[in-house]
Amino acid sequence: MAPKGFPAMPDVPGVLVAGAACGLKRTRSPDLFLAELDAGTSIAGVFTRSRCFSAPVAWCRKVLPRERARAIIVNSGNANAFTGRAGDRTVMRTVKAAAKIFNSPEKEIFVASTGIIGEPLPPGYVASKLPDIKKRLTPRAWAMAAKAIMTTDTFAKGATRQAMIDGVPVVINGIAKGSGMIAPDMATMLSFIFTDATIPAPVLQKLLVRATSRSFNSITVDSDTSTSDTVLLCATGKGEPHRKVCSSSDRHLRDFRKKLEDLMQELARQIVRDGEGASKFVTIQISGGASEKAARRIGLAVANSPLVKTAIAGGDANWGRVVMAVGKTGEKVDRDLLSISMGGIPIARKGEIIKGYDEKPVAAHLKGSEIMLEIDVGVGRGCSTVWTCDLTHDYITINADYRS
Amino acid sequence: MAPKGFPAMPDVPGVLVAGAACGLKRTRSPDLFLAELDAGTSIAGVFTRSRCFSAPVAWCRKVLPRERARAIIVNSGNANAFTGRAGDRTVMRTVKAAAKIFNSPEKEIFVASTGIIGEPLPPGYVASKLPDIKKRLTPRAWAMAAKAIMTTDTFAKGATRQAMIDGVPVVINGIAKGSGMIAPDMATMLSFIFTDATIPAPVLQKLLVRATSRSFNSITVDSDTSTSDTVLLCATGKGEPHRKVCSSSDRHLRDFRKKLEDLMQELARQIVRDGEGASKFVTIQISGGASEKAARRIGLAVANSPLVKTAIAGGDANWGRVVMAVGKTGEKVDRDLLSISMGGIPIARKGEIIKGYDEKPVAAHLKGSEIMLEIDVGVGRGCSTVWTCDLTHDYITINADYRS
Repeated sequence: MAPKGFPAMPDVPGVLVAGAACGLKRTRSPDLFLAELDAGTSIAGVFTRSRCFSAPVAWCRKVLPRERARAIIVNSGNANAFTGRAGDRTVMRTVKAAAKIFNSPEKEIFVASTGIIGEPLPPGYVASKLPDIKKRLTPRAWAMAAKAIMTTDTFAKGATRQAMIDGVPVVINGIAKGSGMIAPDMATMLSFIFTDATIPAPVLQKLLVRATSRSFNSITVDSDTSTSDTVLLCATGKGEPHRKVCSSSDRHLRDFRKKLEDLMQELARQIVRDGEGASKFVTIQISGGASEKAARRIGLAVANSPLVKTAIAGGDANWGRVVMAVGKTGEKVDRDLLSISMGGIPIARKGEIIKGYDEKPVAAHLKGSEIMLEIDVGVGRGCSTVWTCDLTHDYITINADYRS
Repeated sequence: MAPKGFPAMPDVPGVLVAGAACGLKRTRSPDLFLAELDAGTSIAGVFTRSRCFSAPVAWCRKVLPRERARAIIVNSGNANAFTGRAGDRTVMRTVKAAAKIFNSPEKEIFVASTGIIGEPLPPGYVASKLPDIKKRLTPRAWAMAAKAIMTTDTFAKGATRQAMIDGVPVVINGIAKGSGMIAPDMATMLSFIFTDATIPAPVLQKLLVRATSRSFNSITVDSDTSTSDTVLLCATGKGEPHRKVCSSSDRHLRDFRKKLEDLMQELARQIVRDGEGASKFVTIQISGGASEKAARRIGLAVANSPLVKTAIAGGDANWGRVVMAVGKTGEKVDRDLLSISMGGIPIARKGEIIKGYDEKPVAAHLKGSEIMLEIDVGVGRGCSTVWTCDLTHDYITINADYRS
């Protein structure tokens, strides 16, 4: 289910990137990612809702209100999570070292970590590797950057779009990692997105929040939430000059909004395709919800239901389990107006199975690896699309047996 | 993990029960349960929170405010759920027939159904079987009754207690079914509890709600919620006369409260022990929560986490996944005061792994089939105990492969 290869990504004026192996992963694969951003770059961020958030997340949340970024430093192999006050000190060592190297305020240095949880990250380790990786910064090392943030991912994830702002082309590049909301020893969903457009941070933040809810917050592999989830969106303002934008609803941002959402959805879908043990990619379209948010909650409940996921793994057109999952969120649904289709084939309408329903074409659809499930809950006009994968023996093998 | 056998259950004065095969299950196993209750029996009930509740649940909710019951009729093999208006008509046919047979108001007839979802239950079918099963009513057919409500359960579930109300002994008998919150074709958790004590319905309802939160609402197999979950508690008032009780907090009810909670917890634990594919029974004790409710939510999040459940299945002392699950509920926890023990062995304290922590004794504990997990979240004094089972290859086999 993986894409054919890593996409060709153009330069983003104002952004230099590098990926390298610094020795945190036993496999000696790349495990350090560095992005240098031109002074004046604005930044937006969204983070895990976990109450046990990691030390890097705590730092990013603290400095985000400054709205400016000069560097992003990400290591894989160790999450620096559940490491107590020592974890915070490690973050500060990295931040101070980077601030010195880039001649930047400390509050413009962003960090993220992913990998094993609870094992102390040696305090000066990442800091000591910065002078070396700085030498490798180039405008085009995107594939290596995407590789350096991987943990149990089986392929590097990247996407690019060109958008027009009032007739002026801007570029958006994004990389991501994730393979299960959480993978064996604590994976995490990370994504870093860069554009050369000139967009003030408050506007950028609104664009990011909106696109996140329709992309990274609309996917699920196993319903588990990492301590370290981080998405950062940076705008360097170093592209072609374009009309000033002051609001996220500015009509000149229409194409940018669409392309950003597009790019983030592509990255999100790549994460699902790399879901642990996944054998089928499942798109769930909810309509008739009381609101978009309600529709998304219902979609995620269906996507997270172990009984729906195992039925899909087994190619079983068990729509009764879909009804069960739709009901369990507490969101308003009309039991007697519920409609369900699979692969475009109607199964139930107005709360009852369709007369003369023939399971065969649905079973044939479920044999494929791209599954489509459409549900109308009969209440309002709220719609949402959610992506997930099936739950297979391989998920159990990866997560129960990997140490034995 | 099953108990040694069905317990010896005494008679409950004022209650007659019967179980029989009426042909709804293709296997010709018992699939119809009938309880006749003396006139004047008070009743309390709690039901699924699903928005897609079944027709029988809709009926029971409607008549519960009358606070009286004369009969309970339960069929297995067909859930009569997602059957539209036809499902409601089927319920009415059964209710009308029973009301006639027992010379009772319709509103004192309670019904429940469990089994396949979405397949119409022939409207007069259960009604037509009532005269026959009525002949089999006896005070002691508890084992047969418990058998008749089973679906994918591998053993019948029953428990009994004697309680004292101000020095007068009363009896409490309960039966239950469930094997996964939901099993292959829609299982469901059902339980019916009977006592000969004299307790007004409003008091009974409060006792039931409180004991349910500490028993059936403190267990989880797979996080899925049935459309048909039903727990009914009936008090016939036909035992030895005892002092009148007017409030659920009456000190004379102290022993009854304790024994009822005990009995319901025993039934709840039996359901977990019969969980689909379960190889380990897991007790999770949460302390330090902001409230009992907060502690229960955190406990259930740990119990429902596929990554925690697969780690336990694999005998992996992966406490990082426990931290992750604790964080994801949004309930208040103090990251830097979190403590975790497994099998009584401390692993982490004050948000950090214990210095010199030795994994070997924890790994040895995880090799057993009775797992104990203790978590203190460092915020307040709220405590809760939650029971679950592990997530194994057999769960996938049962739920993904059973049709192929």
